[in-house]
Amino acid sequence: MKNHFRIHYRLTPAGPQSVADLARSVAYEQSVEVPDDILTDELRVKSTGKPAYDDIRELGDGSYEMSIAYPVDNIGGEVTQFLNILYGNCSLFPGVKITDVEWNELPNKLFTGPRIGIRGIRKTLGVKRRALSCTALKPIGLNTKEIAYFCLQFASGGIDIIKDDHGMANQKSAPFEERVIHCMQSIERAADKTGKRTAYFPNITAGTEVMMKRLDHAVSHGAGGVLICPHLCGLESMHHIAEKNPGIPIMAHPAFSGGYVQSANHGMTPEFLYGILWRALGADLSVYPNVGGRFSFSAGTCKSINETCRDSTLPFKTSFPVPGGGVQRNTIPDLAESYGSDTVFLVGGSLYQHPKGPNFAAREITEALARH
Amino acid sequence: MKNHFRIHYRLTPAGPQSVADLARSVAYEQSVEVPDDILTDELRVKSTGKPAYDDIRELGDGSYEMSIAYPVDNIGGEVTQFLNILYGNCSLFPGVKITDVEWNELPNKLFTGPRIGIRGIRKTLGVKRRALSCTALKPIGLNTKEIAYFCLQFASGGIDIIKDDHGMANQKSAPFEERVIHCMQSIERAADKTGKRTAYFPNITAGTEVMMKRLDHAVSHGAGGVLICPHLCGLESMHHIAEKNPGIPIMAHPAFSGGYVQSANHGMTPEFLYGILWRALGADLSVYPNVGGRFSFSAGTCKSINETCRDSTLPFKTSFPVPGGGVQRNTIPDLAESYGSDTVFLVGGSLYQHPKGPNFAAREITEALARH
Repeated sequence: MKNHFRIHYRLTPAGPQSVADLARSVAYEQSVEVPDDILTDELRVKSTGKPAYDDIRELGDGSYEMSIAYPVDNIGGEVTQFLNILYGNCSLFPGVKITDVEWNELPNKLFTGPRIGIRGIRKTLGVKRRALSCTALKPIGLNTKEIAYFCLQFASGGIDIIKDDHGMANQKSAPFEERVIHCMQSIERAADKTGKRTAYFPNITAGTEVMMKRLDHAVSHGAGGVLICPHLCGLESMHHIAEKNPGIPIMAHPAFSGGYVQSANHGMTPEFLYGILWRALGADLSVYPNVGGRFSFSAGTCKSINETCRDSTLPFKTSFPVPGGGVQRNTIPDLAESYGSDTVFLVGGSLYQHPKGPNFAAREITEALARH
Repeated sequence: MKNHFRIHYRLTPAGPQSVADLARSVAYEQSVEVPDDILTDELRVKSTGKPAYDDIRELGDGSYEMSIAYPVDNIGGEVTQFLNILYGNCSLFPGVKITDVEWNELPNKLFTGPRIGIRGIRKTLGVKRRALSCTALKPIGLNTKEIAYFCLQFASGGIDIIKDDHGMANQKSAPFEERVIHCMQSIERAADKTGKRTAYFPNITAGTEVMMKRLDHAVSHGAGGVLICPHLCGLESMHHIAEKNPGIPIMAHPAFSGGYVQSANHGMTPEFLYGILWRALGADLSVYPNVGGRFSFSAGTCKSINETCRDSTLPFKTSFPVPGGGVQRNTIPDLAESYGSDTVFLVGGSLYQHPKGPNFAAREITEALARH
């Protein structure tokens, strides 16, 4: 449909409501938001969402797959209003789940996509084929020196990416600017020793203005990337950073995102949110809660997230899936086998628990990944 | 507990998990995020969340009420990190629902709260006791003149507050700056005629920088308030605007918030999100989907939202509850009776549907509210 873009849904009508009725409600709610009888014919053509009534597929569990086409003009060129059309008021309907967007039908310039992507990150890190390792600096409450110590141990052990725990903000125990300086010293010391330079991703999540300052500080001290929790600072803010940033990777973290992905019949599919929407908004790496850890995603969901992150048919660079959240160090060989090489494995607590210490733990993982 | 603040939960353990186990998982996930065995005694005291195991109340439906105390220092004085402690990673646990926060245990300066509040809005509008009326300018696709026409009709009819539809952003059909200028002309014309000045609330939702510019434009043209969708721009961005704003009311709109309030066992209670959290973050008026309209809240939920918005025991000014989303004009007398006078009734589509036109519809509502 000309000058329209499609959003794909899984709809689960309630009680006597037909799927066509629910689709029509969503289409109007997400566009004109008025009863049909007050629309002129012109507005009906120009402004409403148009459900594809002829292409509704019953899934057999009371839900249906279908799409609605929305006028591109309704977006007005702004990410916040795109998000509103995507899942604004209909987030308050039961039975509406977002599964996909036809990005090719949208103006090229609206979404930045990853600035660096999988290929760029591999190039910077000098890792051609194998899967990458990642760990987190924690817990909150350590002072800067203690954090920098762990950073040195992990970097010397060959970890590819070391990120701040997403709860490390600007607490007195280890203020942001000081933390970046000390951790970068650890990175340099390890690089001098091993010849390999680990990428450090400090957590810059904050209000937009502060986040821009933290980005500058991170870049000017040589950080290899930054960590952002887009649902804490706002999805638009991550996109803003991606647009403005001078070329370092953004790792997105799922804190505060669970409301959108926890329910069978509403929200968004995890593979859409973490693998597609985040990527459109500029994430080069997408952290998600892996199966079998502390969270509740299935193996199938994790596989789907991996696939959408790497889907080269979208008009964006690909992003690295980063399974984390209770990944055990001894599962890495099997995971590397099943998840494939375009994966970053985030192992946190399990490295700190190693009886032989963090440096040994890091070397173990580094060696395990080198063999795959 | 000294230097700690409490978050209240409704927890629903899954399968064999005990409520104490789930509470402990949440407390660690939302603080140190490492296994207990790697913590020093010092960090265990200083940094972990502490569940109130002695005060767990079984609710009889498999769920439990309880609270966890977190170190204030973990916040580091930032709203994004507060949100992370509130519902960051545990948003990805099933069975965790946020019900309240002990704001009195937090530093005074962390949350702005409403700048104006119910009393200030009444003073500005010159309405001492009765409930207020509100409508929305829509649908998307109208040009600026058409929008300004409806604004004039509603303002002349005595509506207290006229807001942009939350989907009105900066579309070509009616660009933001032009729209504000023309709508304010309508407001002035109506005021000249009737002697009463309606408050116009343009929708400033966008990225933070753009939103600040729109705020300035709105203020400099005499707008009576602004509309913000905090879940589209980020909750922190609304708080940022509240902190910086020169004294005009913020009306918060629930677009994109549904993920947090649609499920029985996870997310946040609607009365906490709309009546408490938004208020802490600076909302003077909280739009929520009323019972019986297009959305799914119960009468009890709506009553609870009304009560929390007006709860004078919190360390913030009170905020106006704004039930909307399919409120019919003829239900206003009954609603005014049951919801009480500290309410703003948002009637949208139903005013446009009136056979005698928008001005007549506005006058009907104005008269109905004057009688209560």
